[in-house]
Amino acid sequence: MSAFVHGVGTSYFGKQREVPLTQLAWTAMREAFADADAGASQPAGVSVDAVYVGSVFGGPGVAQRALHGLGIAGPPVVTIENACASGTSAFHEAVVAVTSGRYERVLVLGLEQMSTLFRGPILPEETDPEGRTGLAMPGLYAMAASRWLAQGRTTREQMAAVSVKNHAHALHNERAQYRGRYTTQEVLASPLIADPLTLLECSPISDGAAAAVVGRDRGGARDVRVRASVQQAGGLWDHRSDDVWGYRVVQDTARAAYQAAGVEPQDLDLAEVHDAFTIGELTTTEALGLADQGQAGAHAVSGRSALGGAQPVNPSGGLLSRGHPLGATGVAQVAEVVWQLRGEAGGRQVDGARLGLVETMGGGVSGVDGNACVIVVLERTARRVDA
Amino acid sequence: MSAFVHGVGTSYFGKQREVPLTQLAWTAMREAFADADAGASQPAGVSVDAVYVGSVFGGPGVAQRALHGLGIAGPPVVTIENACASGTSAFHEAVVAVTSGRYERVLVLGLEQMSTLFRGPILPEETDPEGRTGLAMPGLYAMAASRWLAQGRTTREQMAAVSVKNHAHALHNERAQYRGRYTTQEVLASPLIADPLTLLECSPISDGAAAAVVGRDRGGARDVRVRASVQQAGGLWDHRSDDVWGYRVVQDTARAAYQAAGVEPQDLDLAEVHDAFTIGELTTTEALGLADQGQAGAHAVSGRSALGGAQPVNPSGGLLSRGHPLGATGVAQVAEVVWQLRGEAGGRQVDGARLGLVETMGGGVSGVDGNACVIVVLERTARRVDA
Repeated sequence: MSAFVHGVGTSYFGKQREVPLTQLAWTAMREAFADADAGASQPAGVSVDAVYVGSVFGGPGVAQRALHGLGIAGPPVVTIENACASGTSAFHEAVVAVTSGRYERVLVLGLEQMSTLFRGPILPEETDPEGRTGLAMPGLYAMAASRWLAQGRTTREQMAAVSVKNHAHALHNERAQYRGRYTTQEVLASPLIADPLTLLECSPISDGAAAAVVGRDRGGARDVRVRASVQQAGGLWDHRSDDVWGYRVVQDTARAAYQAAGVEPQDLDLAEVHDAFTIGELTTTEALGLADQGQAGAHAVSGRSALGGAQPVNPSGGLLSRGHPLGATGVAQVAEVVWQLRGEAGGRQVDGARLGLVETMGGGVSGVDGNACVIVVLERTARRVDA
Repeated sequence: MSAFVHGVGTSYFGKQREVPLTQLAWTAMREAFADADAGASQPAGVSVDAVYVGSVFGGPGVAQRALHGLGIAGPPVVTIENACASGTSAFHEAVVAVTSGRYERVLVLGLEQMSTLFRGPILPEETDPEGRTGLAMPGLYAMAASRWLAQGRTTREQMAAVSVKNHAHALHNERAQYRGRYTTQEVLASPLIADPLTLLECSPISDGAAAAVVGRDRGGARDVRVRASVQQAGGLWDHRSDDVWGYRVVQDTARAAYQAAGVEPQDLDLAEVHDAFTIGELTTTEALGLADQGQAGAHAVSGRSALGGAQPVNPSGGLLSRGHPLGATGVAQVAEVVWQLRGEAGGRQVDGARLGLVETMGGGVSGVDGNACVIVVLERTARRVDA
């Protein structure tokens, strides 16, 4: 039994500490439920069998308060923390719950208010290697970038082109946090964060929420089929490997996802991937097989991975420009692909999109072997009127 | 297909801020895996298909670091936050994963270091009713106690008897945080926390970890069958009800669990329940049907709910005396019942225990309608040599 996305919704993403997190969640949930009812022969309102929440810093009860405010009482609530992949992990559990027959219709809610609740990446914990080495995320990604640059696998200009491209995509996304037209030179000249990464190559601190209603096949023309959803864990890098920063965990998860979905990378019309930093989009798209080794950077420069190109990556603007409220990110990625597959993405529409991919990673040094990767393959249903 | 508990383990519970949380987790996991192998024809070591973690304040990556330290790399990790019921929620998801055929053998890990990571119950969030009303947990339970006292449903001496009883139980539990012999008068005379609750009627701030290996039936004589595991959500109290503090959510969840298990409350040989405060054990045991209305307090005084009584409640010492490290609590409750059903509980053994229950609640005002309740019914397997 396949699971289907019946409806999606998101709040605006950005620094909005004056907006209660529950209100961000209401915005996303209301839109997702209205969206699900819009595609239904029989509206189901806010009735769901369970709620899967992705949240890292929300704290106990925040999802329950948000649900209560929308009149959702009774269904079990499972709140999942999986670092940057929290939202996608919640989506994955929801999909398994539906495909296994455990539940008929569930809500996925991702939410995060980093501007008020995030207290920095270094925890006061003796065994936390990030705490002892100072290897917070910008430093980790800078290591990957340094390696790739030393190998000649990318250039600074190619990395910057990812930022230029994704910010340009976000010009068409009114819910994105950063919508500015930048040149490669401007990206390279922005303040240095972790050598070689500059400010415009790093995803921001963000507040936001996203929601999705996932259920069984109800014959809806606008519903989007989950062709595959796979979660695996592995190292963010492997210094024993010939390809230290090859994102082996993404390669492995992708292989499993493509096999489960019965598709090849070249079949995909678009992808929303984990571009927490510019180098991240390059490592990820090569690991996903969307670019041959050493070619991802060239795709950003040539426009192959841009809107209008053969295989657009992060048409929403990605984490770099839409923003990266951890728990919300994965669900927002799903929402973007759903809009694209329905042809509802407005100025950033990928023409004729039929098959899309979502990829998120979560972890860091913390997850030496336990860095999570979730990959979802979504497909426009055949019944779509213009299909 | 039933799920079975193959092995359990816990750390010492108490304030131990000098012990890294990962080390607490290693202690619990090592014991659980060794315990599982001790009952196996073919030892499986640390090999599991997935890991379900219960943690509230651990922060991203803490479970992954702990798993890495034990050489567990690869399986997906799902970290679940559900307030006080986080550990039991993780156990519930693990059971569903096995009974649904999703996984063959999984690890449940509950962990919490409150002495270093807990920053107080009131979050700086506009829509948090606890923040706006000051109704943190002691105040909430004090409201329940005041109501029950006004109704004549219990007395101060009966409430104090719960503390006396559970502390006495903990004298036989060398992993318990507080092991002291107290009189009713000493409990009543201890410092007032939230009128009428005194210090010795409140569970403490604790650090600890607990683990369980859950899998399919492997014919192990020491394995414990999960007869039922049910999670529901509902209000902590309902002011519109005739029975405001009747714990309707516990009543409803218990009814579903008893039906799923095919047992009646009187069939249970023991129960580990959520005695975060003395009044909590009374409200819970009545809601579970272990005592008639207004009789739970009398059971604590008469010894019916004490070790040696007809139906011991919290033989481990409960949250009041073993301690209450949120994410670890539910898994420790499961561990206690498993030890009891195997006849391995030493000085606190409930003779001939065959059927035991675990109950945990999670939430507060936060969970006006979203307070979680998880109830697990565990059964000694028929193959046990002395059965």
